[in-house]
Amino acid sequence: MDFEEKTLKRREIFKGRIFEVAVDDVELPNNLGQAKRELIFHRGAVAVLAVTPDNKIIIIKQYRKAIEKVSYEIPAGKLEVGEKGSEYQAALRELEEETGYSGDLQQIYEFYTAIGFCNEKIKLYLATNLTKVPQPRPQDADEVLERFELTYEECLDLIRSGEIEDAKTIIALQYFALHVKGGQ
Amino acid sequence: MDFEEKTLKRREIFKGRIFEVAVDDVELPNNLGQAKRELIFHRGAVAVLAVTPDNKIIIIKQYRKAIEKVSYEIPAGKLEVGEKGSEYQAALRELEEETGYSGDLQQIYEFYTAIGFCNEKIKLYLATNLTKVPQPRPQDADEVLERFELTYEECLDLIRSGEIEDAKTIIALQYFALHVKGGQ
Repeated sequence: MDFEEKTLKRREIFKGRIFEVAVDDVELPNNLGQAKRELIFHRGAVAVLAVTPDNKIIIIKQYRKAIEKVSYEIPAGKLEVGEKGSEYQAALRELEEETGYSGDLQQIYEFYTAIGFCNEKIKLYLATNLTKVPQPRPQDADEVLERFELTYEECLDLIRSGEIEDAKTIIALQYFALHVKGGQ
Repeated sequence: MDFEEKTLKRREIFKGRIFEVAVDDVELPNNLGQAKRELIFHRGAVAVLAVTPDNKIIIIKQYRKAIEKVSYEIPAGKLEVGEKGSEYQAALRELEEETGYSGDLQQIYEFYTAIGFCNEKIKLYLATNLTKVPQPRPQDADEVLERFELTYEECLDLIRSGEIEDAKTIIALQYFALHVKGGQ
């Protein structure tokens, strides 16, 4: 059984600052004919499960236009142009900008967020041994953020109340329960 | 501190079968000025952590054009037109089409996959008490799938080898480790 879909033609629809959109005509394997694939191309992103010395998790409150709601998430940010391969540095930067902390980073997962139509890949880091940065880099000018340090139980309450509904944050909290909780 | 971003203008870029694309001009809160938001609108999807009576997890191998690679994932599928609010039925259908099983479904999470720019929301179900459907509904005509029943340890190996790199599947496997493993 073959799986690969060969690209017959690509139609480019949109080139934005955050993502690009294309529609591919593909040849299906096993003589199944042709199909169309609507695709989003994204540079990738980093996210950080930042755990304080008293075992709290840093959570950022922010507005998300795509869902027209406020959301509670772990610190994260897009890779900038040319930053592919420098995810560790990007994660340190986002941690500093969004939390004012630096720390020791260890990659725990990398995953595609919406693999059915989008190539966005997030590298997720665990940050421990956090220390305050004296004069941290400022946040992006178009971001309004509020920072919280929450216990794991408080994070679970935010999942139950529907205030945490973000996949990368759920992955990070499950990881905390499986591998970090009580054990630093 | 205010968080909400008010829409000043929406430019519609693309209306596809899978998603729509728009760019919004927004007014930032707290007199921060204006910004652009590139947005993807998606109907939503369902996914199923299907656990067999001998405690194995059903994993589907398929090609993903957005990443130009084969991927191993839990069964999942998009909501069809008008299916919003019928996620339970959609999950039963996808389970039957992709695995040939029916079962008892219980919602365990719902989450946005790429909250920074996309409103796709996945409802994730746990399926237990699986039984073979005598004449299951066929797969979609443009899908080539191979089905596996794997132990949790075998799934961990697929994460380590990079063959499982899908966020919803990682959420499901961590849920299995936290709440199902050994305990049915």
